[in-house]
Amino acid sequence: MEKKQIEEVREKLGFENQGIFECGQQSIKFPTPVFIRESASVVGKKEGQGPLGKLFDVVGEDDMFGANTWEEAESSLQKKSFYLAATKAGMKPEDIRYLFAGDLLGQSIATSFGLMSYERPLFGLYGACSTCGLSLSLGAMAIAGGFARTVGCVTSSHFASAEKEFRYPLAYGNQRPLSSTWTVTGSAAFILSNTRGNRSRAVITGITPGKVVDYGIRDSLNMGACMAPAACDTIYRSLKDFDRKPEDYDKIITGDLGKVGQRALLDLLKDKGVDIEKQHMDCGIAIFDCKTQDTHSGGSGCGCSAAVLSAYILKELEQGNWKRVLFVPTGALLSKTSFNEGQNVPGVAHAVVIEHLKE
Amino acid sequence: MEKKQIEEVREKLGFENQGIFECGQQSIKFPTPVFIRESASVVGKKEGQGPLGKLFDVVGEDDMFGANTWEEAESSLQKKSFYLAATKAGMKPEDIRYLFAGDLLGQSIATSFGLMSYERPLFGLYGACSTCGLSLSLGAMAIAGGFARTVGCVTSSHFASAEKEFRYPLAYGNQRPLSSTWTVTGSAAFILSNTRGNRSRAVITGITPGKVVDYGIRDSLNMGACMAPAACDTIYRSLKDFDRKPEDYDKIITGDLGKVGQRALLDLLKDKGVDIEKQHMDCGIAIFDCKTQDTHSGGSGCGCSAAVLSAYILKELEQGNWKRVLFVPTGALLSKTSFNEGQNVPGVAHAVVIEHLKE
Repeated sequence: MEKKQIEEVREKLGFENQGIFECGQQSIKFPTPVFIRESASVVGKKEGQGPLGKLFDVVGEDDMFGANTWEEAESSLQKKSFYLAATKAGMKPEDIRYLFAGDLLGQSIATSFGLMSYERPLFGLYGACSTCGLSLSLGAMAIAGGFARTVGCVTSSHFASAEKEFRYPLAYGNQRPLSSTWTVTGSAAFILSNTRGNRSRAVITGITPGKVVDYGIRDSLNMGACMAPAACDTIYRSLKDFDRKPEDYDKIITGDLGKVGQRALLDLLKDKGVDIEKQHMDCGIAIFDCKTQDTHSGGSGCGCSAAVLSAYILKELEQGNWKRVLFVPTGALLSKTSFNEGQNVPGVAHAVVIEHLKE
Repeated sequence: MEKKQIEEVREKLGFENQGIFECGQQSIKFPTPVFIRESASVVGKKEGQGPLGKLFDVVGEDDMFGANTWEEAESSLQKKSFYLAATKAGMKPEDIRYLFAGDLLGQSIATSFGLMSYERPLFGLYGACSTCGLSLSLGAMAIAGGFARTVGCVTSSHFASAEKEFRYPLAYGNQRPLSSTWTVTGSAAFILSNTRGNRSRAVITGITPGKVVDYGIRDSLNMGACMAPAACDTIYRSLKDFDRKPEDYDKIITGDLGKVGQRALLDLLKDKGVDIEKQHMDCGIAIFDCKTQDTHSGGSGCGCSAAVLSAYILKELEQGNWKRVLFVPTGALLSKTSFNEGQNVPGVAHAVVIEHLKE
């Protein structure tokens, strides 16, 4: 019954099932559509005051969300966003077979403590700010492989817990260079399913998992520049693997390159003969008004691309304003320790092909 | 051709393909066998002096492995073990389509910096010391779903980088209670494939991904007790889901409970009416001689279960001395920050069913 339903949609979307779904050098074309049944976003006060403020499901009154520490506050973001996404999909948390989740903090504590109470099997992930792409990719593989009927993909970041983890105590009031980004306080959760249900927001049809790319940049206050080479590598590869041109996408959307990283990405791709200037959008640039919100190059963090996907990108896809986007969350790979030991800050980017779902 | 080969082995092993491979409440029975083509282990000097010392592929002369910092040393462990596993399988690193890897350090830097030079798409994972189970589970899903022909699963830990990350500076020479475990300096890599090739060491036939389980224990120097409830939960669930008894396994193997955790696990399972005393083995107990090596409760760390799987467990399976084992790496979920903020130390355990491959 369910298999028949899958077959029907597969035919409609023109999927082929030949047993191996490798596509090009590093991509996957899913044999069955992976439905994004629902999603939810929970963000902080500052994000609520930004250009997309009215689109988020929940905007906190302050950034503590009723918790005693910033880390607990970030956990409560994940707890809320997952519960809300499941509820919107008409499901209980226990209807979700597996969770694919991660965050920026050491040992991913926002995730472990945030999602623990739901008692769902948890695949813990780490991809820095690319984690939303990582969780959607692995969640989609679980669905398309028939290993689960329904999974949840959750990520988060929090401005204050991230500053504590990576930079300076907030109380120092240190100055931030114009190349720096502002970590988004936010979380989003996505419910993926093998069936369309009463309503689905969009469909995932393929992924291009990314490599770690190191251009020798060491400035942790210019993460856009650190991540742009990885975004370039993954986008270029994805276009080749799926044999598509930039025009085949309504938008090619990076996670949190910010204005500095965006310029670098566009230039790097032009050097390879690919022009995505018309299609490019960056969640970090979209989420804040950097002129009035003092966020410099833009927003960043796992929560940035995740919340913008849930609140804005999926809305445009659902309404059919966009037919197909390449969603490419970007991550900068560093820790306090690697930075203090003089290591570079390499980047990684994972691309997810998300399409409008025809009636 | 390849699909035909898969079908033949599937029939031989009695797999069923009905489109959805959920098994019981939280397990997966793979529709196609996932072959462990090869593996390799690289460990430190102390591990080389332990009871399994002669079985590891590489034993370092000191624990720096030619690097300048402990973190770099851990990275070089991953670099070596992956290269060696691929080489033993007759492959070059570029023949491996995806990597599934992680470690214990904040932001998984041992993995990012260790595997970067191979330029393979990387799925970054975090499951504390259960990460080997996590990587094998997700790698196996990628293979069984037809999303890749060959993947690599890599994990590592390092005594000195872990002490620095979680406990006290080594130079303090702090005393360790008898319940504490000794983080293994080691890494192992596994090459999974959808075809048997000239040689395969064993086959993965199912998994039981685990939940985060919190019994309210806060002692980071008694991680065995923190993880035992999670191991109990996953093992109990796995037996139910696959409708098996402990006797259906030659060994039920936890990652790094140590002697204190082992006692807790056996008692917790007995309370549920399950006796695994005859089948139970713990990699942490197996890797060191705690009487002569001053390791107290046993070994721990991602590298512990991974190295023991590669060097010892797969050898027994390959030779047919064991027909089927349940491999259950266990992780304690904490960070410096969560510990200092008074959080509990919950546990997680991911089970992988590994079987002898009949001719």
